[in-house]
Amino acid sequence: MKIRIGHGFDLHRLEPGHKLIVGGEHLEHDRGCDAHSDGDVVYHAVTDAILGALAQQDIGQLFPDNDPKWKGADSYIFVEEAVKRMQQAGYAIGNMDITIILQRPKLSPHKDEIRNNLAKLLQCNLDQVNIKGKTHEKVDSLGENRSIACHVVTTLIAS
Amino acid sequence: MKIRIGHGFDLHRLEPGHKLIVGGEHLEHDRGCDAHSDGDVVYHAVTDAILGALAQQDIGQLFPDNDPKWKGADSYIFVEEAVKRMQQAGYAIGNMDITIILQRPKLSPHKDEIRNNLAKLLQCNLDQVNIKGKTHEKVDSLGENRSIACHVVTTLIAS
Amino acid sequence: MKIRIGHGFDLHRLEPGHKLIVGGEHLEHDRGCDAHSDGDVVYHAVTDAILGALAQQDIGQLFPDNDPKWKGADSYIFVEEAVKRMQQAGYAIGNMDITIILQRPKLSPHKDEIRNNLAKLLQCNLDQVNIKGKTHEKVDSLGENRSIACHVVTTLIAS
Ligand SMILES: [Zn+2]
Ligand SMILES: [Zn+2]
Ligand SMILES: [Zn+2]
Repeated sequence: MKIRIGHGFDLHRLEPGHKLIVGGEHLEHDRGCDAHSDGDVVYHAVTDAILGALAQQDIGQLFPDNDPKWKGADSYIFVEEAVKRMQQAGYAIGNMDITIILQRPKLSPHKDEIRNNLAKLLQCNLDQVNIKGKTHEKVDSLGENRSIACHVVTTLIAS
Repeated sequence: MKIRIGHGFDLHRLEPGHKLIVGGEHLEHDRGCDAHSDGDVVYHAVTDAILGALAQQDIGQLFPDNDPKWKGADSYIFVEEAVKRMQQAGYAIGNMDITIILQRPKLSPHKDEIRNNLAKLLQCNLDQVNIKGKTHEKVDSLGENRSIACHVVTTLIAS
Repeated sequence: MKIRIGHGFDLHRLEPGHKLIVGGEHLEHDRGCDAHSDGDVVYHAVTDAILGALAQQDIGQLFPDNDPKWKGADSYIFVEEAVKRMQQAGYAIGNMDITIILQRPKLSPHKDEIRNNLAKLLQCNLDQVNIKGKTHEKVDSLGENRSIACHVVTTLIAS
């Protein structure tokens, strides 16, 4: 069995006047991410975890944030590109575990949809993708509703 | 070989007037965690890492923090439940690596006991569980002794 | 196949009057790490990830920061010691994924060199080591250029 491990981390500031997009879902909130793309921390960290497992560096190199091409981009295209590269390298998702850190709003009503979105993008079964939500207990930028972050670990298995 | 990977993260605020419980051990300190349960970041992150590897979502769903049943609960019961589910799914711990971030007090006098506690709960050998302690270099809530956090990665192997 | 997983995390404060050493490279910056050794977060987190996978505790126990022997030490010696222990235990690197969080300066001009340094130290191929750079979006000590951090996940495979 050939197996590779990857890790992804992403964080974005939350600011009034922007939409909050998490794992492809729009969460009703009084603020969102002022990012070059749509600021989806989940899709960005997932992309980085897959690229990382493949040792293909990071999302910032593939999709530079000063390239007008990616301005306001829907971030699923980044995940799709990572998945294409994974398949070209002869791998498939083993399983992926995702931790989303967000003080507000509640993530739980959106977890099933985010998981569905990811299983489709990653071309795997639902039981190969897991979503956890955590608050940051009101401390630091994450706890003060000024940012949102995501940690991802994944295995890729040679197919 | 069937293998699954899981990731756990937990953070709690440290506040005067509460006990500090870490990996089942009571650490003498001028503050502790004001959590619904006993606020044990290690047991919570370990629980989430196992549930995450099994794709069974998270500790907050199994043990809602607004359920009076878990008020002041000793958190080993959360780990036990995760281990039961792991065994029902046909898995055992491969190995687990735990990083505890705590500015004060020193963790080192307690590491062996925490490791013993976990090996028993996880029904594995001591050399399958590792505990690391880190400070947060006096910055942010972790470094200012206002919070404690824990990162866990684990593999589960089909038994 | 025998496989073990490890996780490393390290963070250091950035302060004027010190050199900034990251993955063995000197980065031009207006500040650096005032650590007991050279404060290299990458080499420290890599060391901890390998020791963690081996269940041999942590860098602080092997190289106590109150031991004058390690004052101003070049941190590659910590990685070398971890690699020696890995080989004694009968393991080699599977693959390693590294996320460096640093607001400034840009990491990209140094990534290839850091990766080269690590492949040599870890005695593995370039495609077994991956380096990702992230900013912390101007929030918290990491985003305010007051600290630098590193997350590492690794697999070790019995050789
Ligand atoms: Zn992002
Ligand atoms: Zn908790
Ligand atoms: Zn260090």
